[in-house]
Amino acid sequence: MALVEYAPSRWFNTIGTHEPVCHLKPGDVVRTRTVDAGGTDHRGETVAGRPNPMTGPFHVEGAEPGDALVMHLIAIRPDRSTGWTRNILAGDVLDPDYLQGLPVPSPALTVWDVDAAAGLVRVSDGEAFPWQSMDPMLGCFGVAPAGGEAISTATPGPHGGNMDYRGWRDGVTALFPVSVPGALLYLGDVHALQGDGEIVGTGIEISAEVEFSVDVVKNQGLRWPRGYNDTDIFVAGSARPLDQATRHATTEVSRWLVDECGYDLERVHLMMGQQVRYDLGNIYDPAYTMVCRLSRAMLADWNLDPSRTGLLPAYTG
Amino acid sequence: MALVEYAPSRWFNTIGTHEPVCHLKPGDVVRTRTVDAGGTDHRGETVAGRPNPMTGPFHVEGAEPGDALVMHLIAIRPDRSTGWTRNILAGDVLDPDYLQGLPVPSPALTVWDVDAAAGLVRVSDGEAFPWQSMDPMLGCFGVAPAGGEAISTATPGPHGGNMDYRGWRDGVTALFPVSVPGALLYLGDVHALQGDGEIVGTGIEISAEVEFSVDVVKNQGLRWPRGYNDTDIFVAGSARPLDQATRHATTEVSRWLVDECGYDLERVHLMMGQQVRYDLGNIYDPAYTMVCRLSRAMLADWNLDPSRTGLLPAYTG
Amino acid sequence: MALVEYAPSRWFNTIGTHEPVCHLKPGDVVRTRTVDAGGTDHRGETVAGRPNPMTGPFHVEGAEPGDALVMHLIAIRPDRSTGWTRNILAGDVLDPDYLQGLPVPSPALTVWDVDAAAGLVRVSDGEAFPWQSMDPMLGCFGVAPAGGEAISTATPGPHGGNMDYRGWRDGVTALFPVSVPGALLYLGDVHALQGDGEIVGTGIEISAEVEFSVDVVKNQGLRWPRGYNDTDIFVAGSARPLDQATRHATTEVSRWLVDECGYDLERVHLMMGQQVRYDLGNIYDPAYTMVCRLSRAMLADWNLDPSRTGLLPAYTG
Amino acid sequence: MALVEYAPSRWFNTIGTHEPVCHLKPGDVVRTRTVDAGGTDHRGETVAGRPNPMTGPFHVEGAEPGDALVMHLIAIRPDRSTGWTRNILAGDVLDPDYLQGLPVPSPALTVWDVDAAAGLVRVSDGEAFPWQSMDPMLGCFGVAPAGGEAISTATPGPHGGNMDYRGWRDGVTALFPVSVPGALLYLGDVHALQGDGEIVGTGIEISAEVEFSVDVVKNQGLRWPRGYNDTDIFVAGSARPLDQATRHATTEVSRWLVDECGYDLERVHLMMGQQVRYDLGNIYDPAYTMVCRLSRAMLADWNLDPSRTGLLPAYTG
Repeated sequence: MALVEYAPSRWFNTIGTHEPVCHLKPGDVVRTRTVDAGGTDHRGETVAGRPNPMTGPFHVEGAEPGDALVMHLIAIRPDRSTGWTRNILAGDVLDPDYLQGLPVPSPALTVWDVDAAAGLVRVSDGEAFPWQSMDPMLGCFGVAPAGGEAISTATPGPHGGNMDYRGWRDGVTALFPVSVPGALLYLGDVHALQGDGEIVGTGIEISAEVEFSVDVVKNQGLRWPRGYNDTDIFVAGSARPLDQATRHATTEVSRWLVDECGYDLERVHLMMGQQVRYDLGNIYDPAYTMVCRLSRAMLADWNLDPSRTGLLPAYTG
Repeated sequence: MALVEYAPSRWFNTIGTHEPVCHLKPGDVVRTRTVDAGGTDHRGETVAGRPNPMTGPFHVEGAEPGDALVMHLIAIRPDRSTGWTRNILAGDVLDPDYLQGLPVPSPALTVWDVDAAAGLVRVSDGEAFPWQSMDPMLGCFGVAPAGGEAISTATPGPHGGNMDYRGWRDGVTALFPVSVPGALLYLGDVHALQGDGEIVGTGIEISAEVEFSVDVVKNQGLRWPRGYNDTDIFVAGSARPLDQATRHATTEVSRWLVDECGYDLERVHLMMGQQVRYDLGNIYDPAYTMVCRLSRAMLADWNLDPSRTGLLPAYTG
Repeated sequence: MALVEYAPSRWFNTIGTHEPVCHLKPGDVVRTRTVDAGGTDHRGETVAGRPNPMTGPFHVEGAEPGDALVMHLIAIRPDRSTGWTRNILAGDVLDPDYLQGLPVPSPALTVWDVDAAAGLVRVSDGEAFPWQSMDPMLGCFGVAPAGGEAISTATPGPHGGNMDYRGWRDGVTALFPVSVPGALLYLGDVHALQGDGEIVGTGIEISAEVEFSVDVVKNQGLRWPRGYNDTDIFVAGSARPLDQATRHATTEVSRWLVDECGYDLERVHLMMGQQVRYDLGNIYDPAYTMVCRLSRAMLADWNLDPSRTGLLPAYTG
Repeated sequence: MALVEYAPSRWFNTIGTHEPVCHLKPGDVVRTRTVDAGGTDHRGETVAGRPNPMTGPFHVEGAEPGDALVMHLIAIRPDRSTGWTRNILAGDVLDPDYLQGLPVPSPALTVWDVDAAAGLVRVSDGEAFPWQSMDPMLGCFGVAPAGGEAISTATPGPHGGNMDYRGWRDGVTALFPVSVPGALLYLGDVHALQGDGEIVGTGIEISAEVEFSVDVVKNQGLRWPRGYNDTDIFVAGSARPLDQATRHATTEVSRWLVDECGYDLERVHLMMGQQVRYDLGNIYDPAYTMVCRLSRAMLADWNLDPSRTGLLPAYTG
């Protein structure tokens, strides 16, 4: 276990089998930087092109297809004093008759002040707007897909990618299905804040210092990105329409508890029916993201242990 | 303002312009009972047919098309000791390849013990299942639609109906667009508990005693059901796919703050983009329900007051 | 078998269990008139309200729930010299970014000349537009749904309704699942011409004289409207999104040949996979309509006879 | 203009910026072979992996981003005596409740006899199945996408790809938006026959000899693949749900005639509303394909000439 500091000098706009920038061992902690969705870094210099330039890929020793890549998000720290958003709701979330009559405000982008030390953000227009709590998250991250694909960082999928889910924040551990040797992990597109759904088409887009650790769990059955923290486990499914994203996420939770952990189908489904929670990741990107989430305390009450196959540490209450 | 006690002896399976069972004045409080989704009452007798037999309709004096009908949910009290659920995830939330191989558990329905006094529910199978907190809600309620339609209580729409949203609980006030004189309010289909999405196709279906008050706000622009409590305001949009339900709910929130209250479009959309929350009502019924929700404290920070047109009381923090 | 002439003096905007205007016997031929989608009749007088006022309902003796109502379309004859359309593509068929910038032409409606004798239509603007062949169809027709529902004539469903499918033309026989005694048949909303999808939101809306015969086939398994003529059989499924409409129509064809007629599942599916045709009915109404269609000559080649249960006459080449 | 014969020895499972196998000049005619969807060639040898191994890419001299690549399909000739299909309808086209109870026939694949000389195909089971007319088509073909993406040949998109549209047959000319220098054209996945929608998940999969010519039209506005032959022009849009595929295709037709050719919006939309045709390409792949099609004779009647910008030859009746 080592602390690896990596200062990126190149970025990728696709998540694929590109040359690794860094080789990691399981347990290593990485401290690196990400540029914002438009390629602008902490100094305000635009060093990479759109969309969502990725830092990485990081090759993780021992990760093989069929394994789970573990990425623990230790800290996501916006590293400059302004971010930006779009300022009008996207066509994806408006009725066509309302959309057709909508004026397009100008300028198209709005600057926000970001006081990372205080944990606050505000539309950068003096007193007219309130300070809001910051809640930094990774908008786009994931691992190389199978089959030689190189997937645009505009979109999410089974490999992760541009999920734009505000639950990917400090303290959460992400689990990805490994499709190529070394997994090849990418990250970027930090948002200082984002509502559910990313309905203006952006969060508060910003560069950041990101700290994370990596690990590998051998021979797991992941088909979609999963996550957990002290209180919850979840799966992020991505597709259009949202119905299909919901189907992917829900099916993966059932596979996890029934097919992987071996619990009784009826018991698992009875529990899910009355206890499940869904979070809307994004309803803007080429594929939408829906998250199916369960409380770990509640699972423990039901004697259902998602860590049974070693994918994550046991729940300790 | 009077307390009206109404013991139903007939029920409707459509929400339409049926003969009122009771005439109410604005401010009246009603105490009544609802049978469960299958028509079984508090004594365990099946007195009405499927689906979701409705108590009502209640005619509210002074309610005219274009007004908002106000229904404040004072108390939803399950009034018998068992409820029931389905026990396997619905085809709507499973990938087709997973669904095709799925065994169908039997029996098809599962009985739950409901200890309303203690506020607890449990699968009725001795020690094998844990007690869970109850969270009673109205699954299906709403007002007569326009144009002479009589809409099945299996489905939701602009008139309300079978939204199956667990946020319709005690302390919440529902606001419906009035389409016919007297509004004609119906209610039923109480769930002692339900997860997001109603993904097994039921909550814990149960009969209940329900207490609510009614009021009318003249000349409002509602196109979809709205709700509020001390902490939040929200809109429930219904359609398939979920994308369209999301569009309805989001558009209605924008109409509310921009078109009705007169706030600046860009200010409202900037706020929504980074602060909006979505709740999944149901992803099972003929139309799915998505809820677009905003914190009232947050709105106050932004100097946006959704009560500006008199639709609801001002926020007092 | 009688010729029944019925001149309507009232119309319905919902399809439900309304009082019949006329009682028919199986085999009867009806000659009646329909007003246009806006309620205007052959004299240019607006005699009924929107949407799609229906002529009927016709009670057909002997039709009981579970039967199929047969309606043979003998002739659909536009009976005045002008019709009207909308003149801009609907938001349902345009990308949001294209829609948002679209100018709205005025006036919103365009008048078309209709020369029914010559079978021609033309935008009513002198020489600037070409004459086109007329192809009259029934936009909205169907039978009363089950459960006491009264469904708006704006939308289609299992009962038929506003399918807006240009295949419902002269020489075609429609088959509806009967849900109430007497079936209660409604018709209206004739289009002198319509493209696939009804993508401007209208066909060429016009009043008409319609001639049809009725019959009943006892004890059939219809869940969706079916149709046939000398060359094809088809099913019209309706829902949103189009994917679900396609699922309904395709499933109903499989039920027809496999479950009702008893043919081998694999043989039927092998045939459908390489020979099926889909027609887009409408992609504008509250539910969209997709038609799954098979050639009768091709079915005969495969020794698959959809008339095996007596639902329709045998194919004679 | 030269005749280029190319015998492939490597194949790609993604469409991206791979090393060209061949450099072509505008006007060149290419004669080459494609393996079937599973990688099996004309000799029955499996020489490439799934899915849909592509022959190519062909670099076309002078093609630059913003141009249109022209690919005229001269001949698609199945070059062996058997093909194969799946034999049960895909979950995408069946209602979940019907799907759940469906038996899975075995074997999972069905062999078909292909008599290319006679133009006939038949399930390879002696007399039990009829001979059917062959109608060979290209299932998957297209050009390298922008942004460094390498897109799986399982899916279609703006670059073409796995559209599985039976209209891509002999005599049709395909037009692709060029995103990289040289366009980089790929082709494969020939079907001897396929119904609308590819609803068993395959056409009759077969290897083939394919003959085509290439050309370049400079500076065009294509966002989606277009096609034409003597009778029709069309656009193939791809997405999920079908609604969105329909929006892409319809919008592209409007852009073509209104924005590129300069015709009056209202005239174009009036014509489309009453004359448009839609073909269902596929409703099985990760993105579905819908085709928006117009008759060239009809366009000529309306004085609308889609060849006005030089994208295709003028219509000669």
